[in-house]
Amino acid sequence: MFNPGPIFLIVGALLATLGVAMMIPALVDLAAANDDWVVFAASSLVTTLVGLGLSQTGRGRPAILSSRQAVLMTVGAWTVLPAFAALPLLWSGATATYTDAFFEAMSGITTTGATVVSDLDSQPPGVLVWRSMLQWLGGLGVIVMAVSILPMLRVGGMQLFKTEAFDTPDKILPRATQISGSLIGVFSVFTLLCALAYTAAGMTFFDAVNHAMTTVATGGYSTRDASIGFYQSGAVELVGIIFMILGSLPFLLYVQAIQGRPMGLLRDSQVQVFFLLLIAFSILVALALDPLTAERGTVADLRIATFNVVSIMTGTGYASENYGLWGAMPVTVFLVLTLIGGCAGSTACGMKIFRVQVALKTVSQHVRRLAYPHGVFVMRYNGRPVDGSVVSAVMSFIFLYFLLIGLLALALMAMDLDPITAFSGAATAIANVGPGLGDVIGPSGNFSTLPDLAKWLLALAMLIGRLELFTVLVLILPRFWRI
Amino acid sequence: MFNPGPIFLIVGALLATLGVAMMIPALVDLAAANDDWVVFAASSLVTTLVGLGLSQTGRGRPAILSSRQAVLMTVGAWTVLPAFAALPLLWSGATATYTDAFFEAMSGITTTGATVVSDLDSQPPGVLVWRSMLQWLGGLGVIVMAVSILPMLRVGGMQLFKTEAFDTPDKILPRATQISGSLIGVFSVFTLLCALAYTAAGMTFFDAVNHAMTTVATGGYSTRDASIGFYQSGAVELVGIIFMILGSLPFLLYVQAIQGRPMGLLRDSQVQVFFLLLIAFSILVALALDPLTAERGTVADLRIATFNVVSIMTGTGYASENYGLWGAMPVTVFLVLTLIGGCAGSTACGMKIFRVQVALKTVSQHVRRLAYPHGVFVMRYNGRPVDGSVVSAVMSFIFLYFLLIGLLALALMAMDLDPITAFSGAATAIANVGPGLGDVIGPSGNFSTLPDLAKWLLALAMLIGRLELFTVLVLILPRFWRI
Repeated sequence: MFNPGPIFLIVGALLATLGVAMMIPALVDLAAANDDWVVFAASSLVTTLVGLGLSQTGRGRPAILSSRQAVLMTVGAWTVLPAFAALPLLWSGATATYTDAFFEAMSGITTTGATVVSDLDSQPPGVLVWRSMLQWLGGLGVIVMAVSILPMLRVGGMQLFKTEAFDTPDKILPRATQISGSLIGVFSVFTLLCALAYTAAGMTFFDAVNHAMTTVATGGYSTRDASIGFYQSGAVELVGIIFMILGSLPFLLYVQAIQGRPMGLLRDSQVQVFFLLLIAFSILVALALDPLTAERGTVADLRIATFNVVSIMTGTGYASENYGLWGAMPVTVFLVLTLIGGCAGSTACGMKIFRVQVALKTVSQHVRRLAYPHGVFVMRYNGRPVDGSVVSAVMSFIFLYFLLIGLLALALMAMDLDPITAFSGAATAIANVGPGLGDVIGPSGNFSTLPDLAKWLLALAMLIGRLELFTVLVLILPRFWRI
Repeated sequence: MFNPGPIFLIVGALLATLGVAMMIPALVDLAAANDDWVVFAASSLVTTLVGLGLSQTGRGRPAILSSRQAVLMTVGAWTVLPAFAALPLLWSGATATYTDAFFEAMSGITTTGATVVSDLDSQPPGVLVWRSMLQWLGGLGVIVMAVSILPMLRVGGMQLFKTEAFDTPDKILPRATQISGSLIGVFSVFTLLCALAYTAAGMTFFDAVNHAMTTVATGGYSTRDASIGFYQSGAVELVGIIFMILGSLPFLLYVQAIQGRPMGLLRDSQVQVFFLLLIAFSILVALALDPLTAERGTVADLRIATFNVVSIMTGTGYASENYGLWGAMPVTVFLVLTLIGGCAGSTACGMKIFRVQVALKTVSQHVRRLAYPHGVFVMRYNGRPVDGSVVSAVMSFIFLYFLLIGLLALALMAMDLDPITAFSGAATAIANVGPGLGDVIGPSGNFSTLPDLAKWLLALAMLIGRLELFTVLVLILPRFWRI
C-alpha cells in the first residue's frame, strides 16, 4: 500500500517554513513604510496555514522513504512552493498576471534568474527582498537535494556522489536533517561574507544583502534593471566572481574541509576541470573582447570577460554588459557554457562538469577498445571505479538534455518566437541559467513579452532542469502510478 | 610484428580499380569529341600503375586481418583514393586548385555531395560522369564497409549488425569478397532501374544515368547547377524519392529478400522507424509549406516537402527548391534530419536511425530504473538482447558526433565564417549530407568561396563522418601505433 503521509508531512513543513519566511519582506516593507507589508503578511498567513494543514494530514510517518515517495516529495515541493511564493508577487502588483508571478517564483526558486519584472529600480523593497530570498532558499534546497535525494535515486549518474550517510533509505530522513545543518551553516557564512564584501565594494547595505543571496545561490536576480552593470565597479565584479565560484563547488567538500580534510576540495577532479574550463574560456573571451574595446585595456577586458564567463557557467546569469554584441565566437562560448554548467552538489546549473567528464572518458574508452579489442579498461572517477550503470545514466542524461532543449525550442518556434530566442530560451531554462541570446531575452532584455503558454512551458522546463530531468520524467511512466 | 602487407595489397587493388574506372569518363569525352579524354587517360595510367605497384609490395598476404590492419586499410583506402580521384578534376580545369579538386573528390567518394564546382551546366561530360561515378563507387564502398568492417571493429555499436558471415577475423577477407558480389548485384540493378525510370520521367539518357548513380548512392551530385530543380518535374521527383529511399535501407536485407526471406525488410525495426520519421516530417514540412504556396496546391506541396525531406534525411542533398526560405520550422526540421540520417548498412548518412533508437531505449530504461530500483530491464533491439557495451558505444558515438560538430563549427567561425554557415557546414560535412543552411552553402549556394583551410577541414570531417568517427579517431591514440 502506497503511503503519501511522508510526502504531505515534508511538503507541508516546507510550505509552512516558506510562509514564515514571507514575514521578512513584510517587515522590510513595514520598516520602509510601504503598504505592501499587508500583502506579504496575508500571503504569509495563507501559506503557513495551508502548510501546517498539509503537514498535519501526514502525521505518523514511517522512517523509511521509498524511491517513489522521494520522487513525489521532491517534485511536489518544487511545484507547490513556487505556486504559493507567487502570491505576494501577484497581489503586490509586481507582476500583472498569475502566469507572470508563477514564472518569476519558479525562476527564483530554481535559481534560474530569468525575470518578467521589467522596472526593478522602482519596485518596493519587499518585492525585491522576496525575489532574492526565493533564490537563496531555492539554492539551499538544491544543495540538500543534490546531496541526499538525487544520489539515492541514482538520477543521471548522481550515484557517483553517494555518501555513506545516505546509503540506506531508512537513514535518509534523519541524516538529511543532520547534514542539512552543516550545509545551511556553510551557505549562510558564505552569504554573510559576500554581503560584507559587496558593502565594502561600495554597494548599499540593502543591495549588498540582496545580491549576496542571489550570488551565493548562483541565481542572478538583481535589485537593478541593469543588473551588476548598474555599479560599473571592478570591485563589485570581483566580489561577484569569487562568491559565484564558491556557490558552484561541491558543498559537501566544504563540510569535509571544516572537518579537517581541506585537501579534498583541491584534489577533486570535478573542481579541477571546472577551474580549467573557467580559465580557458575567460581568456578566450577576453581575447575576442580586447580588440573591440581598445580604450579599456586588457586587464579590464579580462575582468569583464571572467565575470560574464563565471556568471553564465555557474548558471547565475548576472549581466555586466550586453555580451550579445561581442561577436559570434564569444556568443557561442556563452551558449556552450550555459549547457555545461558547474559542479554537481552545488547550486550551479547546466548538465554539470562530472557528466562531461564521464562522457569524455566513455568516448576515450571506446576508442581504446577499438585499438585493443581484447583489452580490459576500468573507468575511474576521482580514483574510484565507475560501473556501467553510471555510464549509461550519464549518457542518458546528456542525450535527454539535448533532446528536451530541441523539443522545447520547436514548441517555442511554433508560437512564432524567432529561432535564436527559441533555442537560447529553451537552453537557458533547462540549464537554469537565466538570460538567453538575442534582442528579446538576451542579457539586456527580459521574458515579459513572451506569450503566456511559452512562460508556462519555460517554467516547466526550469523545474525539469533543476530536478535533473529524470526526477520529473519518471512521472509520465504509467507504471510509476500503479499501486 | 605488424604486417602492412594486406593493407598495401587491398588499397593498391582498389586504387588500380579506380584507375581503370577513369577510362570510362575518358571514353565518354572521346565519344563527345572533347579534348579532356587525354586528361582522364593520363590520370588513369598514373592511378592504375601506382595501384598495381602498391598491391605488388603487399604480396604474400595472410588470411587473418587484425583490427589494426582493418582500421589502417579502411582509412588508407578512403584517403588515397580521393587523392588520386582528384587528379582529373584538377587537370581538366574543372577545379582551379588541388584543394578544390580534393574537396570535390572526397565529397564525392564519401557520398556527401557538397560541391565547389559552380558551372555544372557548361562542364564537359567526362567531368560530370566522373563526379557521378565517384559517388556510385563510394556508395558501394560504404555498404561493403558497413556490412563487413564496421561490425567487426564494433564501431559505435555496429556490432549489433554482426552477421554470422563475419564472426571471426580469419573469414573476413574471403567472405567480404563473396557478400560483396551480392551487394554489387543489388546496387547495380537499383541503379539500372533508376536510370530507366528517370529516362521515362523525361530526363535525357546522359542525365538519367548520372542521376541514377548519385541517387542510389544517396550522394547528391547533379549534372545541373539547379540540381533536380532544373527539371521542374513531379515525375522526376517521385523517381528520386523512391530510389533515394531504396538506397537508405539496410542492403543485407535486400540480399536476404532475394534469398527468399522478404519479410525481414518489413519487420526490421530500423526500417519501420525510418519510414515513420519520413512520413511524419514530410507532413510537418508540407503543413508549413502549404500557406506559403497557395497557388500550387496541397498535393504538390506534399510531394515537394517529401522530396526534400527524403533528400536530406537519406543524406543525398539534391535540392528542388531553396528550402532556406520556407521558414524557421522547416529549416529546423532539415537540420534535425541532417543529424539523424538513414539506416545503418546502407549508403545513407548521419548518426543512423538505430543509434537514435538505442539512445531512446537507454533513456527509457533509466527512467524505469528510477521507478523500480530493483527491477531488471533487458534492452532489446529487433527482438535480440542488447548488451551494455553496445549502449556505451552508441552513446559515445552520439556524444562525440555533437562534440565534433561543435568543435568544427568553432574552428570555422575562427576563420570568420558566420555562425549559420559554420554550424550547418560542420553538421552537413560530418553527417555527409551535402548542402548547409544560409546564403553561402545553403541549397542554392556552394562551397567554392570558403577559405582553403576550411575546405581541408570539411574534407577531413567528411572522412571522419563517413568512417563513423571512431575508425579515424583511433589513429590519434599513441598506443595504436606501438608495435
